[in-house]
Amino acid sequence: MLKAIQCNTQEHAFRHVTSIEQASKIKDEPHTILWLDLLSPSEQELKKLGNEFKLHPLAIEDASHEHQRPKVEEYEQFYFVVFYAAHLDAQEQGLEVSEVDMFLGANFLITVHDKPLPELEEVEQRWTRNVKQLEWGIGVLLYSMLDTFVDRYFPVVDNMVDQAEEIEDRLFSGTIRQKAFAQELLELKKRFLTLRRIVTPERDVLNVLTNRDTPIFDEHASVYFRDVYDHITRLADTIDLYRDQLSTTMDANLSIVSNDLNKVMRTLTAASIILMADSLLAGIWGMNFVNIPELHLEYGYFGALAVMAVLSFLLILFFKRLKWL
Amino acid sequence: MLKAIQCNTQEHAFRHVTSIEQASKIKDEPHTILWLDLLSPSEQELKKLGNEFKLHPLAIEDASHEHQRPKVEEYEQFYFVVFYAAHLDAQEQGLEVSEVDMFLGANFLITVHDKPLPELEEVEQRWTRNVKQLEWGIGVLLYSMLDTFVDRYFPVVDNMVDQAEEIEDRLFSGTIRQKAFAQELLELKKRFLTLRRIVTPERDVLNVLTNRDTPIFDEHASVYFRDVYDHITRLADTIDLYRDQLSTTMDANLSIVSNDLNKVMRTLTAASIILMADSLLAGIWGMNFVNIPELHLEYGYFGALAVMAVLSFLLILFFKRLKWL
Amino acid sequence: MLKAIQCNTQEHAFRHVTSIEQASKIKDEPHTILWLDLLSPSEQELKKLGNEFKLHPLAIEDASHEHQRPKVEEYEQFYFVVFYAAHLDAQEQGLEVSEVDMFLGANFLITVHDKPLPELEEVEQRWTRNVKQLEWGIGVLLYSMLDTFVDRYFPVVDNMVDQAEEIEDRLFSGTIRQKAFAQELLELKKRFLTLRRIVTPERDVLNVLTNRDTPIFDEHASVYFRDVYDHITRLADTIDLYRDQLSTTMDANLSIVSNDLNKVMRTLTAASIILMADSLLAGIWGMNFVNIPELHLEYGYFGALAVMAVLSFLLILFFKRLKWL
Amino acid sequence: MLKAIQCNTQEHAFRHVTSIEQASKIKDEPHTILWLDLLSPSEQELKKLGNEFKLHPLAIEDASHEHQRPKVEEYEQFYFVVFYAAHLDAQEQGLEVSEVDMFLGANFLITVHDKPLPELEEVEQRWTRNVKQLEWGIGVLLYSMLDTFVDRYFPVVDNMVDQAEEIEDRLFSGTIRQKAFAQELLELKKRFLTLRRIVTPERDVLNVLTNRDTPIFDEHASVYFRDVYDHITRLADTIDLYRDQLSTTMDANLSIVSNDLNKVMRTLTAASIILMADSLLAGIWGMNFVNIPELHLEYGYFGALAVMAVLSFLLILFFKRLKWL
Amino acid sequence: MLKAIQCNTQEHAFRHVTSIEQASKIKDEPHTILWLDLLSPSEQELKKLGNEFKLHPLAIEDASHEHQRPKVEEYEQFYFVVFYAAHLDAQEQGLEVSEVDMFLGANFLITVHDKPLPELEEVEQRWTRNVKQLEWGIGVLLYSMLDTFVDRYFPVVDNMVDQAEEIEDRLFSGTIRQKAFAQELLELKKRFLTLRRIVTPERDVLNVLTNRDTPIFDEHASVYFRDVYDHITRLADTIDLYRDQLSTTMDANLSIVSNDLNKVMRTLTAASIILMADSLLAGIWGMNFVNIPELHLEYGYFGALAVMAVLSFLLILFFKRLKWL
Repeated sequence: MLKAIQCNTQEHAFRHVTSIEQASKIKDEPHTILWLDLLSPSEQELKKLGNEFKLHPLAIEDASHEHQRPKVEEYEQFYFVVFYAAHLDAQEQGLEVSEVDMFLGANFLITVHDKPLPELEEVEQRWTRNVKQLEWGIGVLLYSMLDTFVDRYFPVVDNMVDQAEEIEDRLFSGTIRQKAFAQELLELKKRFLTLRRIVTPERDVLNVLTNRDTPIFDEHASVYFRDVYDHITRLADTIDLYRDQLSTTMDANLSIVSNDLNKVMRTLTAASIILMADSLLAGIWGMNFVNIPELHLEYGYFGALAVMAVLSFLLILFFKRLKWL
Repeated sequence: MLKAIQCNTQEHAFRHVTSIEQASKIKDEPHTILWLDLLSPSEQELKKLGNEFKLHPLAIEDASHEHQRPKVEEYEQFYFVVFYAAHLDAQEQGLEVSEVDMFLGANFLITVHDKPLPELEEVEQRWTRNVKQLEWGIGVLLYSMLDTFVDRYFPVVDNMVDQAEEIEDRLFSGTIRQKAFAQELLELKKRFLTLRRIVTPERDVLNVLTNRDTPIFDEHASVYFRDVYDHITRLADTIDLYRDQLSTTMDANLSIVSNDLNKVMRTLTAASIILMADSLLAGIWGMNFVNIPELHLEYGYFGALAVMAVLSFLLILFFKRLKWL
Repeated sequence: MLKAIQCNTQEHAFRHVTSIEQASKIKDEPHTILWLDLLSPSEQELKKLGNEFKLHPLAIEDASHEHQRPKVEEYEQFYFVVFYAAHLDAQEQGLEVSEVDMFLGANFLITVHDKPLPELEEVEQRWTRNVKQLEWGIGVLLYSMLDTFVDRYFPVVDNMVDQAEEIEDRLFSGTIRQKAFAQELLELKKRFLTLRRIVTPERDVLNVLTNRDTPIFDEHASVYFRDVYDHITRLADTIDLYRDQLSTTMDANLSIVSNDLNKVMRTLTAASIILMADSLLAGIWGMNFVNIPELHLEYGYFGALAVMAVLSFLLILFFKRLKWL
Repeated sequence: MLKAIQCNTQEHAFRHVTSIEQASKIKDEPHTILWLDLLSPSEQELKKLGNEFKLHPLAIEDASHEHQRPKVEEYEQFYFVVFYAAHLDAQEQGLEVSEVDMFLGANFLITVHDKPLPELEEVEQRWTRNVKQLEWGIGVLLYSMLDTFVDRYFPVVDNMVDQAEEIEDRLFSGTIRQKAFAQELLELKKRFLTLRRIVTPERDVLNVLTNRDTPIFDEHASVYFRDVYDHITRLADTIDLYRDQLSTTMDANLSIVSNDLNKVMRTLTAASIILMADSLLAGIWGMNFVNIPELHLEYGYFGALAVMAVLSFLLILFFKRLKWL
Repeated sequence: MLKAIQCNTQEHAFRHVTSIEQASKIKDEPHTILWLDLLSPSEQELKKLGNEFKLHPLAIEDASHEHQRPKVEEYEQFYFVVFYAAHLDAQEQGLEVSEVDMFLGANFLITVHDKPLPELEEVEQRWTRNVKQLEWGIGVLLYSMLDTFVDRYFPVVDNMVDQAEEIEDRLFSGTIRQKAFAQELLELKKRFLTLRRIVTPERDVLNVLTNRDTPIFDEHASVYFRDVYDHITRLADTIDLYRDQLSTTMDANLSIVSNDLNKVMRTLTAASIILMADSLLAGIWGMNFVNIPELHLEYGYFGALAVMAVLSFLLILFFKRLKWL
């Protein structure tokens, strides 16, 4: 599915374009900036695109395969940029990432992706509204694109941070179902790792866009890309902090589980000793020796019960002191 | 809330200014250094500020959002610096950090923050007192600012170090409440991590201020910034040392908990064997065989008790030897 | 075993060559690119090869020994490249790696390996088919070689990733045989480490081939090597992610094992206390005191059983509450 | 307390100087090298020193505070160096570090410290003896200083290494008191970390002194500083090795503790089963059924004892096989 | 003990030299390369050596002390190189390292070591045999030296790798003696760490020899040193792989020990419950209530035994299902 918009930077006019061929024709008109967005294009469409816009076959091939690494590659006529959008899934629990491949020419930007992305509508609005920055050329469009993507990471990371904090709180707030706890923690950690695998190379992408004096960017645009770079650096910091913290939580959990075991064993030990001691007494007075004087005392039985009670009481006191009960 | 001070570096005179417009007017007077401090400014105030002092809209936008990363950014007319103040909270237990955004021009410094900061009064006093350094220009004001902030980190870190030492001492000094212990340790570690997330990029900020030959700083000021750099490097060292040490403490704790369990189990084993052995004897002599010769001995019962006592004694000796009791 | 192919880049013609001497003769013909593939060559063959193609004795010696590290070395007349092919073994469980040593001259590529490699047939097909890239010279052959090798890594890594995911799922899905689990995890981790030991220096190899302005490569080829570099970087990322994840899985496993123990001990404690309490009662009423009034009640026995039942019921309730049963 | 020595490098003569003022006067005499050592100077003395020798107030302020980080700072007229001496404490167990602040001018060295340091006497002897190196100027004095300090680290580290080895040996040689063991290990690790915090930045200090072509140093001196650099690098290596090794020892300890627990539990299980099985038999033959034929056998009792003995023997054999006893 | 060989690179003649003085005399003859090997020289010999060959006193002092770090130092007239030989000890279990200090001049190499080294005989043979490389000068001798040393590391590392694999296999193959296991693992890890401490700086040494355009080396020699660099890099890789793997083995061990404990506890729990339940029954029927109807049944006793047997059987079935038995 193709969506293409032509912008005349002199007249501040926007026009929708309906086919790759038409886009290719008007792309050399003066003051023109062109954005083509292709949703799940066929191999053929990509090939046609490559021919019309003189894109390198390798970049076209990369764009037709999923799971590229975030990167920026310089070709003779254009830059090839891979970036990722990140969303929470429907249950607001998992993490979904979508790849977006971009071809950035002197006055055109082509975006290729496999899933519909709500971010792109926002990009369009920001681009068409920011009239006075339009003369900066294609840079402002790419900036709107990357900034929108990175801004959308924040609620995702915040949600994951909330989950991490919630897991930690749960650890100290009462009995937890251990298996579910470990699984949640493991999955959350994996989500952090997955996001980190996207964010770290994207930071490199932005670093390249900021530092290298690229002729296709107006110099005013560089400040804006630096801002996106800052945001993504902060995200990377947060991710690293919580990745570390989750490991510590796992360790703390082991320490708490071990200690719980300790308490259980102390209870078992104390209870066993008390009950076995009383049982021993009962066993002794249940022996069949002919001459066991106390058996013949009138209140011997009650005495025996009293002895048992006193012994139990003393042992309970003793174990209470040791904090075993 | 606005607070603005004009300093005439020739006459060593300080004058309070009451509005952004007035400040903007006098900022081009010769020998003038201007400090504007804005506490929780509205969006409009920030916008007016941006217009009067020709601040880049991106920096203005950064200043209106919390949770920037410590950084220094060069714009055409000014530097944008983000720094953090750190305090202990009211209970002297937790850590509170407050962001301060600064616009540093050729002869003005604008500070923007959301919470009232006692540090700023100290900065004002240091600035107005250090009369003879005033001709160094705006650098001495920024130095007073950053140095005051960093100096205030030390009691915070010292308090955290004390807590870390105290936690460690407690580990070896007796029975600890394990859950509280793990929680305290985890929270303390998180506080170290949080502070580290501030201190590490601030060190980079100071590195930039020290090394880059920035025309807005008098060259005498550079030595001073290097001093602040040293202090913050030392802080980062301390934080790393204790972060590592806390991990080791967690490990040591696990090892101690496991060993406690060991001791409990040895006690249980020894006590069980002794009591069960005696019980077995009592059970044997409680059997109903018609011909159990010893049952008919006159002192059989006492002999039986003696046998039990001797057996118990020998087993106790044996387990004492094994150090199980 | 020798397999040699001569390519005339002007006529797009391919011709098989049958001996090292013949290959050596025609290698200086104009427009010639030569690929020699030697499977388990003898020391003598290698020596002859070295003489004919003026290869440095050190590189020849490296090629005659297995277990070189992936590397690229510049000699005066040629480059010596060591690369690895990776396969799953027959059971699709283990990892098998095969070393390939390459001598890359201005217009020849010599590959030396000890095991037959299916990758090489694919390389030959890709090379002979890509007619229009042939004028780029030897670079396109080396690119086909390295790209094919790296493409073959992906199913291997995917298989290992599947195993890692499967191990993790198994951890949370029920009782696992612990020893087998730990062994599998350990071996899988070792496989990741082994692959990493190959992939990381190979990335360096590709970095060298991409960046250094080497006169033997057509400048068009550089873009292609960068593409291979990207692929191998992504592989390295994946490997690191799963290596980390496997460590966390090991930790989670320990935590789950400890918790299982906890549950077992709670069951033991609860069951012991209930059974021992009832036994104590039975022991008490089995004592031989002459005056135990309740023994003479007509329904004393049933009362006793009822007391035991009630006591058991209450204890069970109590332990159910504690979630110990 | 002031101690000052003037050296005339032409006449190889040494003279004691008694006051800061006198020292300041003679410091501009030709062929003069001056060493001032101040033990716990007052703020006033430091101020006077700063005035006489034109030392920067910031360096003076640094020198009046303890706990600087090892560093070398270039000022216009001098270098400010912070270094540490390290000793074992009186019990040869703990680690004591003392800060020494140095002002290194073209022909003077001023050392400031808070505790008396035996190292300094050795420095004096080395300096006054090495007559022929005296023409190298101030460099030889600084070299003697730093080399002496670093040489004194070796016995400290050796002692710590011995303790680490001894702790490890103890782990495998018998029953250890776990709490004391963990505490010792933790404290030793902290000592390694503390020393590392000094040694690592000191290595940087020496790196700066070696590499930077500093006009105040004779070029012959550079070789000597490189030698000190080597020594301190070796120290850092040793510290890192043992820090790593102590972590592994902690892990090994946990594994041994867990295994001990295992053995205890096997003993408990085996002993419980044997004693409970015999008790069950005794209980059975203690039941009051009217018709229990074996009770009436003449040697039934002895048969019962024999049955118990045989059962115990078989169970013991069984558990011996399992290596549980 | 001195061993000295003079090589005339024009005549390819080798001549033994008997004293330091003689060596010093002939060292300036044309076409001469000189190798002096000193085994445990006295301080005096070293001093004489320093005088005759104009070696820097610092290098001489380094050579007279053991335990230098592998390094290469440039002096005005020569290079000072420290390298290590590594052997398995007599039992083929431990690791023994021997330091060799080398003075490398324009046409002489002096080796100083404290223990007899079989490597040096091999070096001599390789040197005297490689006649045609002799004109490369002193470089070929140093290359033979370092290459021989590094080649000898491989069997040492292979042996350690075998031990690591064997330890791992043992972990999964049956019951291990835990204490011995942990000790072996710890010692093996320490051996890896020790070797790493040698290999890593030696790699730096070779890097320096390879890259720096040193006038004393023929440019042909550089390729050879690069080869040694490759070998030692591969060794470092292997060491790191197994160091990591040993840590994972330690973790796996802990997990297996914990799980063994789990199994023991399940056995204990199941056996306790069965035996205690039967005992309770026996206890109940051993009570002395006057009216216990079933006691008077003719086959009550056998019924009771049957009840116990059935109960035991059901419990065994139940625990078998839970996989507790």
